Amino acid sequence: MSVAKEFEAANANYAASFAKGDLQLPPQRKVAIVACMDARLDTARALGLEEGDAHVIRNAGGRVTDALRSIVISQQLLGTREIVIIHHTDCGMLTFTDDAIRTKIRDEIQQNADHIAFLPFSDLRKSVLDDVRLVKENPLVLDVPVTGYIYEVESGKIVKVE
Amino acid sequence: MSVAKEFEAANANYAASFAKGDLQLPPQRKVAIVACMDARLDTARALGLEEGDAHVIRNAGGRVTDALRSIVISQQLLGTREIVIIHHTDCGMLTFTDDAIRTKIRDEIQQNADHIAFLPFSDLRKSVLDDVRLVKENPLVLDVPVTGYIYEVESGKIVKVE
Repeated sequence: MSVAKEFEAANANYAASFAKGDLQLPPQRKVAIVACMDARLDTARALGLEEGDAHVIRNAGGRVTDALRSIVISQQLLGTREIVIIHHTDCGMLTFTDDAIRTKIRDEIQQNADHIAFLPFSDLRKSVLDDVRLVKENPLVLDVPVTGYIYEVESGKIVKVE
Repeated sequence: MSVAKEFEAANANYAASFAKGDLQLPPQRKVAIVACMDARLDTARALGLEEGDAHVIRNAGGRVTDALRSIVISQQLLGTREIVIIHHTDCGMLTFTDDAIRTKIRDEIQQNADHIAFLPFSDLRKSVLDDVRLVKENPLVLDVPVTGYIYEVESGKIVKVE
């Protein structure tokens, strides 16, 4: 069975007791979260989010560069006024370089990915600081509170970096 | 109190009973989900995900164009072999155009955003079909099962499009 079919079955259970059909489009807690796509991070459970609370933007590494379009839409059209950035321990982004993944892609599927910056990093704490700074300095992003955390996949804890 | 402080308090509760510290980096169910950042969509609850199950890539609209870097990393380095795309009813992306948001940004914060394609859409079903096709046709993406859904924010249900 495909995983999609399993999702359909799980969703039937979720929808059967769904009682949140009147939530509004703008996030109630006026916050946008930028986090890694990592499977071990459940942003809702780990941060106490209910449906309707927050925009959740996720990508490989939780990198701000890749989230800019979404952050601007979140602020300009949907009224969020705070940003929380979450990277995490044991991140896949710590394990490769642009050169390495481009070579792998060329060797294994005979494609050229030289035009993609994959945004890996070698220092987890610095990656959070870099992304907090990037978002604070971007002129398209409003001057709002920005907080950066490291999520510890070993403990379930978020640890504030800045 | 900032929302970040509220997240810290909620996370302390989560971490206090955390018992999943030995999960592996590659997603156990070998699937990458691309979904909208919308606050009303809790991908884990709506699809029955547990920590460790799936990569969750989210952006404004759940657009594949913005998710390509993450999909390639997910497949090439972390072994996912299925893609699920989820857009949803009452999406903010249905409410504006590139021209409109660029004008707003110019008028309100005196910045130029002409270089950003914000990827809005006017037809929800078509946006899912477009993104399924985009990912299937992209030579950097492996030939894996791709399923596209519309999540109904009114009912909590996912409805298969393709």
